[in-house]
Amino acid sequence: MQQERKGRVLLSTTGFEPDRWIDLLSAERDVVTEPAPGGDPSIDYAVVWHHPRGLLAGLPNLKAIFSIGAGVDHIMSDPDLPDVPVVRVVADNLSQFMTEYVAWRVLDHHRQGVAYRSQQARSVWDERPQAPAGEVAVGIMGFGALGQATAAALLALGYRVRGWSRTGREMDGVETFAGEARLGDFLSGTDILVVLLPHTPATEGIVDYDLLRRLRRDNAIGGAVLINAGRGALQVEDDILRALDDGTLKEASLDVFREEPLPAQSRFWSHPRAFVTPHAAAASDAVFLVPQMLAQMSAYDRGEPLWNLVDRDAGY
Amino acid sequence: MQQERKGRVLLSTTGFEPDRWIDLLSAERDVVTEPAPGGDPSIDYAVVWHHPRGLLAGLPNLKAIFSIGAGVDHIMSDPDLPDVPVVRVVADNLSQFMTEYVAWRVLDHHRQGVAYRSQQARSVWDERPQAPAGEVAVGIMGFGALGQATAAALLALGYRVRGWSRTGREMDGVETFAGEARLGDFLSGTDILVVLLPHTPATEGIVDYDLLRRLRRDNAIGGAVLINAGRGALQVEDDILRALDDGTLKEASLDVFREEPLPAQSRFWSHPRAFVTPHAAAASDAVFLVPQMLAQMSAYDRGEPLWNLVDRDAGY
Repeated sequence: MQQERKGRVLLSTTGFEPDRWIDLLSAERDVVTEPAPGGDPSIDYAVVWHHPRGLLAGLPNLKAIFSIGAGVDHIMSDPDLPDVPVVRVVADNLSQFMTEYVAWRVLDHHRQGVAYRSQQARSVWDERPQAPAGEVAVGIMGFGALGQATAAALLALGYRVRGWSRTGREMDGVETFAGEARLGDFLSGTDILVVLLPHTPATEGIVDYDLLRRLRRDNAIGGAVLINAGRGALQVEDDILRALDDGTLKEASLDVFREEPLPAQSRFWSHPRAFVTPHAAAASDAVFLVPQMLAQMSAYDRGEPLWNLVDRDAGY
Repeated sequence: MQQERKGRVLLSTTGFEPDRWIDLLSAERDVVTEPAPGGDPSIDYAVVWHHPRGLLAGLPNLKAIFSIGAGVDHIMSDPDLPDVPVVRVVADNLSQFMTEYVAWRVLDHHRQGVAYRSQQARSVWDERPQAPAGEVAVGIMGFGALGQATAAALLALGYRVRGWSRTGREMDGVETFAGEARLGDFLSGTDILVVLLPHTPATEGIVDYDLLRRLRRDNAIGGAVLINAGRGALQVEDDILRALDDGTLKEASLDVFREEPLPAQSRFWSHPRAFVTPHAAAASDAVFLVPQMLAQMSAYDRGEPLWNLVDRDAGY
């Protein structure tokens, strides 16, 4: 009986197989992947990743929208988004995964993975000069929970860490910079730039040639490095390729792209100094996220508040 | 005047250019790279890396031998080693470099660098299942100063860490195992084996097929991984290749080899799941080591004791 009183969940995803999500959500709720035509009244909640624009507009009983993934730009960019709460569900292990990814990529660039793999392919035994981490400044753009967890791991590895954020967030052992006025100072002392910004109108395309040009190239690792594990829409991809080609950037690790999956004709696939991963830095694991979503739905049905709500004005 | 009272330094190295060492040692001492024939009485100290066997035997005034590099097997294996103190000079940054190397390799195996680089080469966008570090047990064989510094960084990244040593050394947050009797327990719970042992008669060839077979293969990273940053003589290289080929090992990162430079015909160069670096994990940087050596020589000339002496019975 109780099962029938629970409203349905609309699961709408693009770019990955939803089977696992359906299985886990079905433990407590009926799940549909398409609403019935003409404004489906059976749907109380939507769980979405890049849903078709307008899909959520005609649902008369929709109570809230849950985002798969920490970023919510894929939701906020819908011009027909209904005026219901948007919940960002943050997995406990999201910052763990992101920290691993960033530490992995920072170490691979700093410890010359590109050069040593190239040497191995040619059977070349040649020890290269190597600076210790203490001579390398890693600058993190976007210094919220993810950025600070990442900074802690980089500090433990011995790196010099800098953090830039819109509002200025402090952290022991990290040189922090706030707002547009300090961006130049932040960049000019950064050897490896880690981008963890949310995607908002203010950050759209922020990683362009002009920004990359301001990084420190005359440094202990032989050039400037870009790591983007935030959002593809933060970056101007032709500018990154130009910077890689003309030496403004030595190397780049990109986990996110304007268009995902990255099109087969993209030059990033074959660029010898670009490392491509398929938006895999910090997966939103259904096993961690679905129980939180179901718990929030039940709590909201009982009249309790939602948590991890998105600020619709700020866009994140 | 004072300069002339200082005995000469014999610098004898194999496998790398000694110019930088000569320059730095010459700041305080006359340096020669060959003794004069017939027992050169001008030489007070030897600074060596894989010196020719017997070279040090005929020097009547030799006071002490300094090792380039933390390992001293290249000295102790000389059957005609004179009975003078052997000093292991440990650079402050040696454990920093080793920590970076091990964290880099652990992350690359755990975060599926081999698979993602292969996918990129084929323009394949496919997010792979990924376990967090907390589900991965890294076992460190050789749990002295280097092993413990490495363990601290791995703990900060979220890994489960185990340590094995001959005598049993404890560390908070690490499950430790002592001696031959506990080796099996140590190995059977280890997913990624990090070898940092000294090379002694007791550890010669310890990394063989039988040892690799005892690692945990049914694990969160899809197989067992070997990382050797200790000494090439610890490993049986045909056994490692056999283990890579038959799935006993999923992947390996090797920084050291029986013969260095690694011969061009070695199968490690081209093995798709072996990563080769040219004994570059933790370079003995002359800038850090030479001032310590010169300070010890001057102190010993004044009658003060040497420090960081090698225990000739234990062999390290």
